[in-house]
Amino acid sequence: MASNSAEDRRWMAAAVALAGRGRGRTTPNPNVGCVIVRDQRVIGRGWTQPGGRPHAEAYAIAAAGDIMGATLYATLEPCAHVSPRGPACADLIAAARPDRVVIAVRDPDPRTDGQGIERLRAAGIAVTTGIEEQAARGAMAGFLTRRTKGRPHVTLKLAVSLDGRIALPDGSSRWITGPAARAHAHLERARHEMILVGRGTLEADQPRLDVRLPGLEERSPRRAVFGHGAAPDGWAALRDPGAIGALEGVDHLFVEGGAGTAAAFLQADLVDRLLLYTAPIVVGAGQGAIGDIGLADLAHAHDRWRLADTRMLGSDRLSIYERI
Amino acid sequence: MASNSAEDRRWMAAAVALAGRGRGRTTPNPNVGCVIVRDQRVIGRGWTQPGGRPHAEAYAIAAAGDIMGATLYATLEPCAHVSPRGPACADLIAAARPDRVVIAVRDPDPRTDGQGIERLRAAGIAVTTGIEEQAARGAMAGFLTRRTKGRPHVTLKLAVSLDGRIALPDGSSRWITGPAARAHAHLERARHEMILVGRGTLEADQPRLDVRLPGLEERSPRRAVFGHGAAPDGWAALRDPGAIGALEGVDHLFVEGGAGTAAAFLQADLVDRLLLYTAPIVVGAGQGAIGDIGLADLAHAHDRWRLADTRMLGSDRLSIYERI
Repeated sequence: MASNSAEDRRWMAAAVALAGRGRGRTTPNPNVGCVIVRDQRVIGRGWTQPGGRPHAEAYAIAAAGDIMGATLYATLEPCAHVSPRGPACADLIAAARPDRVVIAVRDPDPRTDGQGIERLRAAGIAVTTGIEEQAARGAMAGFLTRRTKGRPHVTLKLAVSLDGRIALPDGSSRWITGPAARAHAHLERARHEMILVGRGTLEADQPRLDVRLPGLEERSPRRAVFGHGAAPDGWAALRDPGAIGALEGVDHLFVEGGAGTAAAFLQADLVDRLLLYTAPIVVGAGQGAIGDIGLADLAHAHDRWRLADTRMLGSDRLSIYERI
Repeated sequence: MASNSAEDRRWMAAAVALAGRGRGRTTPNPNVGCVIVRDQRVIGRGWTQPGGRPHAEAYAIAAAGDIMGATLYATLEPCAHVSPRGPACADLIAAARPDRVVIAVRDPDPRTDGQGIERLRAAGIAVTTGIEEQAARGAMAGFLTRRTKGRPHVTLKLAVSLDGRIALPDGSSRWITGPAARAHAHLERARHEMILVGRGTLEADQPRLDVRLPGLEERSPRRAVFGHGAAPDGWAALRDPGAIGALEGVDHLFVEGGAGTAAAFLQADLVDRLLLYTAPIVVGAGQGAIGDIGLADLAHAHDRWRLADTRMLGSDRLSIYERI
């Protein structure tokens, strides 16, 4: 079957959506998505299962049974390295004899990094790469950031008024945003291995930081406190944003504030994604969302963030910015 | 011709768009829009001309010539009172013998207030009212606010970072937003009779507050300063937001800040429309957009503003909120 790039993009977009299902639950493995298509029909699909196994490709091939002559779409290059927990996906695919494999992102893991592609081609399978690469990179940002930068992917969440306030002068912050925005923020928590707040927020609000959505209660991330002093039982402690690389098993870190913590991560240039919930209210005097980040010139603030997505959540607006 | 409400709404939307052309230039007259339609074709259109005359209906009828059997759409009830500057539009229309007149908003001016409609009906012309009323009220908000509240319609403009800052701690504010947002703000200036800033902004920035758009240089509004002390030559002085009703010839007031002035107008509940330009930058420590408005409880901040419109202007977002 000849390559048809519009069709390839469409099927890969489906694989990217499946990849999102494993986000926050597959570390240290990547959360891959996989779709297998023959004669315009999906015959198998999979995503990396909680704990990291089975891999998406193994899951999808098992679901399809016979995939001879089909096209397999995977968000990440199939792994070339055998582990005690399972075979290399590149070998598994080669043995299953699809006609083609389409890959969004090459695996930066040095044990694979191009060798998965080579092994498929050596087996006579056509390989296309780079399809829907940006979307796939977004879906697997935790794994990729860990592999390329040695640290988790960091999302900073802010819930602000139209004038950028997160609380009244006395600290009261219930509520800025409405129920739909707060539920969305809980869903985001479930997609991170760890959630972090500053010591001031911990002491002022005693937040539970759990996922309070029906059916997702078990998906609450581990908790961490930023700043000096001891951490509560079961919480991790972080004294320096630069130390996030040492947080084991954390590929996605969710920073929920307050203003000092947000500023520390921004000043260290360790925020990859801004999740901004804006309520249609004016607060006036109150606490700002972000403390001093050491900005000396407004010109330096520009060209750092791009709007990746935006939507209404009830009467609040969610805007997702990604670092450029 | 029978009433067809989808069709009526479509033609009235065109009249509302025409009404916007006179905004800020017709005081003390309303900025009306008018479209005359026969056999699904526009045979005349008009809007209140600068200075308030000719009225939209007179302009449209003159453009059409013969309007017998046509339907005339007007955003405001045609006036029933004769002035030294021209005849009553209701009489003019009655004499021109259209089949129907469709009206968005009844004129609150006691000299007309229903009498224009009565005079048309007495002449045997069918009259439909209330079509596209909300949009028409928005387009003629200055006139309607002046008539019903005895003061101008007030728009507060803010240009903020993602975290609600309008300047660095040292006051530097050039630039938060980009050229497209700044050009849009200049276009908004041209639609107001008066623009106002606080004394602090005046002294810090020495703003010109004019319209710097090619072809619109002559549309710069009159200028006013809010606060104590003398006004510069040619500027008006305002000491109390509650005194805006006394600003002669001002049906649209554009408040450009700073934070103290914004807060004074908000606390006095004298802001009808918020024009919020948000740049995709993070500032951190800096000057907030709005000072103390005396908010004691976050619950009181809710249900006051609704998002009326939003769009991107370059990489900035414009959000227009209207008072509920």
